[in-house]
Amino acid sequence: MRLEWKNSLRVAALACIASLAIPVAAGDDGVRYPEGFRLFDHVKSMIIEAGHPLFEAVGGLHHLYANKRAMDGYAAIEAANGTVRFKDRSVIVFDLLQDVRGGNAIVEGARKAVIVMEKDDKAYADTGGWGFQVFDPANRTPLLDKAAQAQCFACHQAAASTDFVFSRLRP
Amino acid sequence: MRLEWKNSLRVAALACIASLAIPVAAGDDGVRYPEGFRLFDHVKSMIIEAGHPLFEAVGGLHHLYANKRAMDGYAAIEAANGTVRFKDRSVIVFDLLQDVRGGNAIVEGARKAVIVMEKDDKAYADTGGWGFQVFDPANRTPLLDKAAQAQCFACHQAAASTDFVFSRLRP
Repeated sequence: MRLEWKNSLRVAALACIASLAIPVAAGDDGVRYPEGFRLFDHVKSMIIEAGHPLFEAVGGLHHLYANKRAMDGYAAIEAANGTVRFKDRSVIVFDLLQDVRGGNAIVEGARKAVIVMEKDDKAYADTGGWGFQVFDPANRTPLLDKAAQAQCFACHQAAASTDFVFSRLRP
Repeated sequence: MRLEWKNSLRVAALACIASLAIPVAAGDDGVRYPEGFRLFDHVKSMIIEAGHPLFEAVGGLHHLYANKRAMDGYAAIEAANGTVRFKDRSVIVFDLLQDVRGGNAIVEGARKAVIVMEKDDKAYADTGGWGFQVFDPANRTPLLDKAAQAQCFACHQAAASTDFVFSRLRP
């Protein structure tokens, strides 16, 4: 039962990313490209394969990275110490790569998108304190407008008890 | 041609890990369990599937993590500035997990092994300055004796020009 709930949360999270990953318009809501995110802490990884409902949107291999402030938020989720709040300037990055298959192995291919949640309670008060953005990996252009970002937040409300964050830190 | 060379290096690297991953005896060569390695920098990831020649030994999803000193070594490889030497106390961890498949997705499962290279030019002078060890993830027991470690180094000699390190940092 609990596992089912977790799985539906996971699907909800990915559905939200899916809506984000469709470039609707160039936007500038203040979410910055996460410079240096490859050296952020590694939260977890997953591969979405052909046949998955979200394959068209976010198919491939993804890694989640978090800066130190966001890692404090993940630790608070693990401790389950009441209401979890990620601190301002927490940044979580969904690094989407091609999954290259051959020789009975899967390796990392080219980057497809850099998907970001950035915390600022004042700047993003309308969306739970989180700014959402998707960047083109080639030129770092932000691809989402306000309407797409609002869809994002609507989806993330399913994770309200963990400050709208779906993912969990892998031990 | 260059890709073929890279692939054969990759196979050599994994073959070496394969020989390491067979628990031959408890050993104590001084290589320490890499406390806190989950917060080391993330170098790259790969999945080895059923049918791969190394599946029995290191099948599953693995992540490579490096401490800051080892990251300097990876940067030197990228810069290709002559002879590459990893500094003493560089640590590289091969974190081997089960790859759990279902619903057209692959997620991370239980840890299978923690495989380590630790640099100390004096302590490990006989093996290129690197200590090699595999730890049981449950109790952190070292599983390799000196003979297995020597096999490891024999294999890594194929990467002598990069100080016996096969992996490359993913951008």
